[in-house]
This record gives sequence, C-alpha cells and structure tokens, in this order.
Amino acid sequence: MLVNAGAVGGALLAGLAVPDASSALSQQPAAVPPPPPVAPNDPTSVLGAPTSSAGERSPFELSARSPTGETAGSSLTPLQRLNGTVTPSDLHFERHHSGVPFIDPAKHALLVHGLTDRPLSFSLDDLQRFPQVTRTYFIECSGNGRASYRAPMPEMTAQRVAGLSSNTEWTGVPLRYLLDEAGVASSATWCLAEGADSCLMARSIPVDKLRDDALVVWAQNGEPLRPAQGYPMRLLLPGWEGNANVKWLRRLEFGTAPWMTRWETSKYTDPLQNGTARQFSFDQDAKSIVTSPSHPDVLAVQGWRPITGLAWSGRGPITRVEVSTDNGATWYDADFLTTPIAKAQVRFQYMWNWTGGEATLLSRATDSTGYIQPTRSALLAVRGLGTDFHFNHIVGWRVQADGRVFFHGLT
Amino acid sequence: MLVNAGAVGGALLAGLAVPDASSALSQQPAAVPPPPPVAPNDPTSVLGAPTSSAGERSPFELSARSPTGETAGSSLTPLQRLNGTVTPSDLHFERHHSGVPFIDPAKHALLVHGLTDRPLSFSLDDLQRFPQVTRTYFIECSGNGRASYRAPMPEMTAQRVAGLSSNTEWTGVPLRYLLDEAGVASSATWCLAEGADSCLMARSIPVDKLRDDALVVWAQNGEPLRPAQGYPMRLLLPGWEGNANVKWLRRLEFGTAPWMTRWETSKYTDPLQNGTARQFSFDQDAKSIVTSPSHPDVLAVQGWRPITGLAWSGRGPITRVEVSTDNGATWYDADFLTTPIAKAQVRFQYMWNWTGGEATLLSRATDSTGYIQPTRSALLAVRGLGTDFHFNHIVGWRVQADGRVFFHGLT
Repeated sequence: MLVNAGAVGGALLAGLAVPDASSALSQQPAAVPPPPPVAPNDPTSVLGAPTSSAGERSPFELSARSPTGETAGSSLTPLQRLNGTVTPSDLHFERHHSGVPFIDPAKHALLVHGLTDRPLSFSLDDLQRFPQVTRTYFIECSGNGRASYRAPMPEMTAQRVAGLSSNTEWTGVPLRYLLDEAGVASSATWCLAEGADSCLMARSIPVDKLRDDALVVWAQNGEPLRPAQGYPMRLLLPGWEGNANVKWLRRLEFGTAPWMTRWETSKYTDPLQNGTARQFSFDQDAKSIVTSPSHPDVLAVQGWRPITGLAWSGRGPITRVEVSTDNGATWYDADFLTTPIAKAQVRFQYMWNWTGGEATLLSRATDSTGYIQPTRSALLAVRGLGTDFHFNHIVGWRVQADGRVFFHGLT
Repeated sequence: MLVNAGAVGGALLAGLAVPDASSALSQQPAAVPPPPPVAPNDPTSVLGAPTSSAGERSPFELSARSPTGETAGSSLTPLQRLNGTVTPSDLHFERHHSGVPFIDPAKHALLVHGLTDRPLSFSLDDLQRFPQVTRTYFIECSGNGRASYRAPMPEMTAQRVAGLSSNTEWTGVPLRYLLDEAGVASSATWCLAEGADSCLMARSIPVDKLRDDALVVWAQNGEPLRPAQGYPMRLLLPGWEGNANVKWLRRLEFGTAPWMTRWETSKYTDPLQNGTARQFSFDQDAKSIVTSPSHPDVLAVQGWRPITGLAWSGRGPITRVEVSTDNGATWYDADFLTTPIAKAQVRFQYMWNWTGGEATLLSRATDSTGYIQPTRSALLAVRGLGTDFHFNHIVGWRVQADGRVFFHGLT
C-alpha cells in the first residue's frame, strides 16, 4: 500500500487532520459506528499484548458519555453500562456553560475575600497542606430527567433518562478550615462561588452549607480532577444540585445577600404552574432508576435474574428501595449491594423470575428523612409540565413478551 | 507552515506512523518526555473545549504505570500521584506471563468440572443472572517490593517501591453459588483455576477459600473489566497474592490435591535461608507506605502538612497505622481518611510540622489479627536476602534540610 499514490495521499490528509492522539480523542464520536472487532476464536493460541502505560477498555465494551445529545454543553453517564457504585472519572457527566477551560495549576489560585478579616489566596499547594478528607458523593445536574419527564419515549435509555447523575470518591479540604483561616465575619450569610471558565459561572451559596459539609476538592477516584470536572479544584456541596458545585473554583466572596447571578435567576429556578418559581432549591431529592434490565436490553431466556439499579438522595442515606414488576400494584424490598452512604449512590438488587409474560419494572426510593420518591403524576400536580429542574419521579421499564425492554415514564 | 515542503513531509511521516488514536495510546511512553503544555495566563479569556465522549486527563497531570520497569510483563501503579483510596482502573498494576489476550466475550465461557455432580459451562450472561455483590479489595503482586528489599536506592519512588498493589471496587458473583450449581463433591479440597492467556496460567486453590469470600468478577470501578485486568471475567481471592487471582478465567477443575503448576513450584514460592521454601503462601501480610511526601517531592516551605499514605492487610481490616518522623524513635497514631475495610487499602494521615531540619518518615501498620508490620531487618533474619515474594517490611523517606525527599529502605 505504501507505493500506492492514493493511499499515501490519504495518509497525508490523515496526518494533517489528526496532528496528535490527544486531539483526536477530544473529538465527537463518529456518526458511523466502527465495525465490530474480531478476536481470535482461541485466544490461548496467540501471544497477548505487552504491558502498557494505561490499561485501555476492551473494544467490545467501549463506552461513551453521548455528548451529541440535545442538551448543548452536557454529556451523560452511560448508566446502563455500569455496575457497582463507582462512576469512572472519564464517564462522570459534564455540564458547562462556556466549555472546559485549559488551566495551568501553577497559574491558578482560589481567592477568599469580602466580609473576612484577611483576604487570602490559596494555591493548590497551599490547599494540600491542610488536613484532607476523602468522601464518596453523587453529583446530579438539577436538569437531570427533564426530557423523560416532559415527553417520555419508549426508546430512551437509562443514560438518556438519568445520566446527568454520577457517583465518585472525592479528596480535598473541608471549606470551614479556609473560612477560619481567612476569618470570615459572623455577619456573612452568603458567599459567591465563581469559576475560572470564560463565562465566570457563579452561584450564591449560604455560608451555613460551607461550614457544614462543603469541600474544595482536587482529586476524584484517586487521581487529580480531570479538566471536565473542574481541574485543578472545584467546590463540592454534597447533595446539592450540580450547578452549585462550581468547577475551576477561583473565588469565594462573602457577603450578606445572594448576588442574583444569571445562573440563579434565568436558569436553575423552577417555574411553577401559578407563575411563580422556586429559587435556591439546592437539595436533590430522593431518586432511583433500574439500570438492568433496561432499554435496549433483550431478555434472551426466562428464569431468575437480578433487577439492579441506583438510588440516591441529597438529604441523607437511602434507607429503602422497593421494586415492582407489575407497574406498581405490588412492591418488594430490594437489597443493597453496599452500605448506603449519605448523599451517595447505592446499588440495589431484587431477584426476579421472568416467566415470559409482559411486565413493568419500577423502583421507588426512600431516604433517611422518610421522604418517598413520588410518581410523575404527583410531581405534575405540584409543579406542572413546564417546571425546569428537579425531576425525581418514579420511572421504569416495560418488558414485552418477546423479551424486548422499553422505557416506561408515565407513572 | 502548510506550504513548507519539509513540514508537509513531517506530517506525512506522522500520519503513517500513527494511523489512529487508539494504537498510539497503547504504545510505550516515549523516551523523551513531551514539552510542558502551555495554558493561557487567563483561562477566562478563552472559550473552553466542547463536551466529549470521555473526559481525558489534564496534560499537567498525565500519569502512567511505568511499563518500562525492569520486571518484564508488569506495570506499576503511580502511588505518589494518587489521593484517597480508589486506584483508577487504567492505572491498576498489571502482571502477566504471556501478554494480555484479546477476548470476545461471546466466545468465552467458564468451565466448572472435575469432582462435581454435573460439569457446567457459564457464559458471561449466565454469570450475570446470579445474585451479584459489590466489594472493594486490594490486589497485590506477591513480588511487590522485591527491588527495594534487596537493594534500596534513594531515587526509588513509591511507584517503584510498592506500585504492584492497587485498590478497586469489584462486582461479580460469589463463587460458592457456582460450586453449589455444579454440585462440587465434599471430597474436593483443591481446585485448579486456569486463565485463557496463551501460557494457560493456572494456580491450585484450596476449596475452602472458594467457599469463603472468593468471587468471579466482571466489573471494576463501575465498568466492565479492562483486558489487562482479566476481561471478561477473573477470579478474585480477597487478600491473597495477585497471581492466584486468575485473570481471563476459563476453567475451574476440582480435585483432592494441588496440581503443582509451574506458577506454584518454579515461581511464587518463597526460598528461605535454610534451602527450603514456603509454598502456597497465599496471604498478603499487613503493609503500609507513605505516599506524600515521597521522592521526588521537594518541600518548598516549612510548617504544617499532612503525611499521608496507604495501608492494607490480606487478613482483615487495618486497625492502626503509626507514623514516625525520627526514623522510628517515636511513633504517633495516624488518622484514617475512610473507615478501614477488610482486605482493602485505607488512606492514613498524620499532620506534621516541618521546621526545616532533617527527618526520616516511616509508617507501620497493624491489622485486626494484631499482626504488626516488621522492619526489613526482622524480615531478613527470618527469610534472608534471597527470598522472592511477600515483602511487607517498614519503609520510608528521608527528608533533607534542603527539602528534597529520598527513599529510605534500611529499617
């Protein structure tokens, strides 16, 4: 092929179009899926691949965040492909308002100022000299589930329905240490948290939350934050809507009233039927979703199988998940695969004997406050079809007699 | 530049040498490090990158498993770059004896036979119909720490000293379910576990362990196993030496005596000074290592900072980690960043006020059996310098007055 002029021309163009591997990886996935890989029938007959600097995924299991969905500036965790409770860092959902900034950590600092005794600037090295903590928390975009609430469609996947929620281990410093260091005034009740992206995304946060369980984190799942998750540092407000967990955090200004930024006025408020709107509705309420089986699974055989999924609440640990296989007529308690952690996802499991008929699988979570996940009808009655955020209604899957599985959103 | 013939020629060669992004990624790291990336001085002045199918690492934090180390067929987790307790799946250490096989899961099955009522073959789909469990466990190669035991050198990093140990969340099926399904005879006391790599790596395992806490896992950190970690399924023997956790698991044969494979005769036995050898020494004893500060860190400023690191034991949860800053003359209890889990790594932390002098930092772990990590001298006295596996002696770091940090292995 090397002597064929056309092929060399193609290689030349390829070389120009794809100057290096990293930029190729950041491109959108191709519209045409690659051909399926062909593995040897007997892998023991072939010497395997050598060791590598990083262990890549199997081509049979390549997974993606579907960045080409209709929501500009977001990509969704492929929940139907995941097991256990950890979301791999590169598959954590992303949502940003002016792209992912490219930041040199040596040029980045966090300014703490306003109603403080002494304004301070913290480099990443400075932060890492404080006592650190490691905690597992979910983050969920408050717009998660909007499309499936407004117009549920049978072909929706778990990723499409609820993929703006992810669960990882975070390491960082409790924010109250920084507040004490800067001497934040007791009169300060609100704080503006601002990111270093080009829209300067900023949210007003009650100081009580910052003194409670808020963190400034620099690591996720053991490694430094990835750029799409706020590298080199982000605000972590356990259990609160994703947008308030400001990424690329560069400034905390303390004051006595909210700033009324455009991300808490034109966005991230919840329009109600009576023409008013909920504002500063930070808490993410209890929610769950069955991820297996789910669309586009096809049940090939009858018999026992686990129904598994994820549940979480921004108000405390999940205390109960119930599963129904008859569209809510009967509910059964599911087991937890791990001990539920406050403000983290937990995987549930219910063993089900499919005897070949039609079935509708639902899950319903309860948290430590006693709150029970509502139906879509109940949510509609309170907030109306036009509400824009905080969709935590019960959803599920319709299993056909032929084994095909479709989304069921009209609960 | 595009009209410059030399530059176009360069692009042509680049296009030929790097036909696609995935093969470029699987190559060994270049001997010459890439130039440091240049980020904008003010990232808020530049529109950021679009959403992507997977969130890549920052070029300022690229991490690698150092596959070019002296141990052929292995790569090491970069412990000094990690935080918290999760090892990212692509940075989990790897060790294999004939490369990483390329396996189509549709062509793979696990055969259970020998002293059983009914030999059975389980596909991945079959396994996933059993009740599943999710657990966090470390895996450690029993050769971990050999080089730093035999010939400690100041320039060794935590990766080099202890990077054949990693810690992740696993999802799979308890092996006892499969034993019951196949009707394994009560007379069966040993089992041969065989992988689908081209050397047919195989180990003899006591059946008691399989009935206790052994798993067949298909997922790690939420996603399907990666090929280097045993895709599509591997044996997981919590707390036992890595080699026995057979990857690409394809066969379990039940019998009444060990098979004496070459991986339990010529390798993975521990030569002793008296000419005999320990055999079937499966348990990984309690161990710890400080990962920050560690070589090649340079302490730039005096004052308080955390000494953090990882501790683990194959016999139960870690109950205590002590830290010394004066080469073992005085010991202080460290805190745990998370609740210690049996047979999993836990991160410890001890706040230290460096006043600028020389210091020698050590850590010492105790597990739930009361066992205390020994010094190198104590291990030498029992096993000699020529022993080949199970190096769990105390190690540490020497901090110079100029802030530079070097490995200290002669404890």
